[in-house]
Amino acid sequence: MSEPVRIGLLGRGTVGGAFAELIGERAAAVESATGRRPELAGTLTRGNGDFGEILERSDLIVELIGGTDPARDYVLDALRAGRPVVTANKQLLAQHGEELFAVAREAGVQLRFEAAVAGVIPIVRVIQESFGVTEIEKVFGIVNGTTNFILSEMAATGAAYEDVLARAQQLGYAEADPSADVNGADAAAKMAILARLAFHTPVTLDEVVCEGIEAIQPDDIAYAKEFDLSLKLLGVAERRPDGISVRVFPCFLYSGHPLAPVEGPFNAVMVEAPAITEVTMSGPGAGGIETASAVLGDVVSILAGEAPVHETREVLPVIADVSSSFYLHLEVADRPGVLAKIAQVLGDHEISVKSVVQRGIGEDARLVMVVHECLESRFAAALEQIAGLDELRTPPRAIRVIEEEFV
Amino acid sequence: MSEPVRIGLLGRGTVGGAFAELIGERAAAVESATGRRPELAGTLTRGNGDFGEILERSDLIVELIGGTDPARDYVLDALRAGRPVVTANKQLLAQHGEELFAVAREAGVQLRFEAAVAGVIPIVRVIQESFGVTEIEKVFGIVNGTTNFILSEMAATGAAYEDVLARAQQLGYAEADPSADVNGADAAAKMAILARLAFHTPVTLDEVVCEGIEAIQPDDIAYAKEFDLSLKLLGVAERRPDGISVRVFPCFLYSGHPLAPVEGPFNAVMVEAPAITEVTMSGPGAGGIETASAVLGDVVSILAGEAPVHETREVLPVIADVSSSFYLHLEVADRPGVLAKIAQVLGDHEISVKSVVQRGIGEDARLVMVVHECLESRFAAALEQIAGLDELRTPPRAIRVIEEEFV
Repeated sequence: MSEPVRIGLLGRGTVGGAFAELIGERAAAVESATGRRPELAGTLTRGNGDFGEILERSDLIVELIGGTDPARDYVLDALRAGRPVVTANKQLLAQHGEELFAVAREAGVQLRFEAAVAGVIPIVRVIQESFGVTEIEKVFGIVNGTTNFILSEMAATGAAYEDVLARAQQLGYAEADPSADVNGADAAAKMAILARLAFHTPVTLDEVVCEGIEAIQPDDIAYAKEFDLSLKLLGVAERRPDGISVRVFPCFLYSGHPLAPVEGPFNAVMVEAPAITEVTMSGPGAGGIETASAVLGDVVSILAGEAPVHETREVLPVIADVSSSFYLHLEVADRPGVLAKIAQVLGDHEISVKSVVQRGIGEDARLVMVVHECLESRFAAALEQIAGLDELRTPPRAIRVIEEEFV
Repeated sequence: MSEPVRIGLLGRGTVGGAFAELIGERAAAVESATGRRPELAGTLTRGNGDFGEILERSDLIVELIGGTDPARDYVLDALRAGRPVVTANKQLLAQHGEELFAVAREAGVQLRFEAAVAGVIPIVRVIQESFGVTEIEKVFGIVNGTTNFILSEMAATGAAYEDVLARAQQLGYAEADPSADVNGADAAAKMAILARLAFHTPVTLDEVVCEGIEAIQPDDIAYAKEFDLSLKLLGVAERRPDGISVRVFPCFLYSGHPLAPVEGPFNAVMVEAPAITEVTMSGPGAGGIETASAVLGDVVSILAGEAPVHETREVLPVIADVSSSFYLHLEVADRPGVLAKIAQVLGDHEISVKSVVQRGIGEDARLVMVVHECLESRFAAALEQIAGLDELRTPPRAIRVIEEEFV
């Protein structure tokens, strides 16, 4: 058996707690992927534990304590002691990134921070690794789920900013003190980090031009609909002929824009470069388990060193007969009882109809319907029986449907 | 100066040619990111070059020759000789993946293949690294740009499959022999690869249940619109209680589905897991330069070994005054000449109006307009002047607009 990897955990709030749990749950998977089993070497909380002792017993430090003080000292000490560090702390990186990167380089250890930006979207890895030598022109998107939820609700309900904010707080999408979200400071920190990665140049938080959503009026959102516009809080980092610009501001998008359909507490980021045209990534803004999952991904990357070569973890059977919903197109004789007959066949096979449209076409009628999910073999049997009915004018046509409607 | 990394290139078609060019263009960036400068050690084409000699002089092999024979032998030989391999060859991986992975593991070298699946979307890296220990439940999406273009065109124009296919061939979105695209075989190979990565279990191409789009009728697409449905060729790999299922089939989606707005020659992939909810990634299906760019990303990953620690490549100034388009909301006295006066101020600052709506509100009028892109400082000056007009009833409100409308 190989040596376990001992993880020193700093902070045990929502994310820290979720991470501690996740390590337990996924320990076998981590061992299978990296050859080493993770275990908690110790946890530092505000009231408990000694950082020096935890560092001493750890192979790797996970910083989820938040804020810059004492997080900065802890991370610097860990790096200088040769311990790789994973952090989800965007303020720390946006304010002290250059210092941390320099110390990490000097010590020759990794510093990873996927969880600091854009929730579950692995944008840090994609910019840094997949597009690490691509000449990125622009990185932009919705990097704060709280404000996107507020703007979506204002647009959907016409309610005022203050009322929607209160609702967001009730739902847990906004904190008791929401100022860093709504004034754009949270998004600004994330954009400083993304700009630094995309353009390989130092960017400090105070260079980010930033405007929040506090002043947005519901009627602006309503009037803008006449122009087919929807409102988002955007972060935009782009290469300019004479440098770069990094900004956060509320902004209208036309409905054809890839970010326009992103609603609710979601994040979405676009990367543009000549060699890739554009790539868009979207997903929920961070919750505890999502952030912990991104942290664990970074831990695994540090342990893996280089890419694993597709170990088989288990051999699973591949199943052919699954359940689907179907669109069904039938041309039938337009006489009484045909629809009933077809409905009977479907009912006999325990297939229920979701929606149906019937139209006359001369002496015939056209039936177009969507049926709810059922085992495909059962649908095939029903279809065969329907195809054999005297009333059918042409062979039936069936196409699968995904019933799920996302919000 | 460090040793250059010598790349042996197999194949010099569209992608091979673009890759050879890209290495030259991005050599400095690769050296900056990895410490090693890439150079071509030799190129094998159908008519020219000896594989053994090229292998001998190379540190790393890039296989872009396509097909499985002799590509399989070349890749196996390279791996056995201890050379890392990057390939864009989906058929090779879908048919002989297990053999190649086993040999790579045995030889202790990397085999990377980001370019084999989903164009510029870095889905292989994201599944394998970011979500490498995440319990993925489902990977699905649009993994063939040709068929997505055909289905989008059929929906937009009502034209028949054959006519749209001919148009796709003219535009270069479909090959002279389009059968592997339209019968789903290309998508099936990609789904076999994604399923293998997501579920850590061997999946062979012949286990993928596959149905193409050849039989789709334009009127099915039209009738389905009544149910708010749009048609895509989907690849779906999912975990089932008793195994996995991997399938390719044409499928209707309701308009609220994240994949529904994906139109034209684009790819989009969703990953679902409890710990991440869902992540969606989209981008153009592969062209020569996009595929070459994904190949280069893999080369860099092999050279980098572990993640680079954010070297500053150049120090760029951060610019605050940039150009934007604006939405402008004005409440003004409803008397003749007001609009002209405001238009005059905008004109004086060389700001042109894109669209405007005027509405009466009692004795006042509301002007809502969108102006075309202009330098923000210039817009601010115009706004200040407008705010000073006697006719203004309330302070003007301005919000940025992204003018770009994507197709």
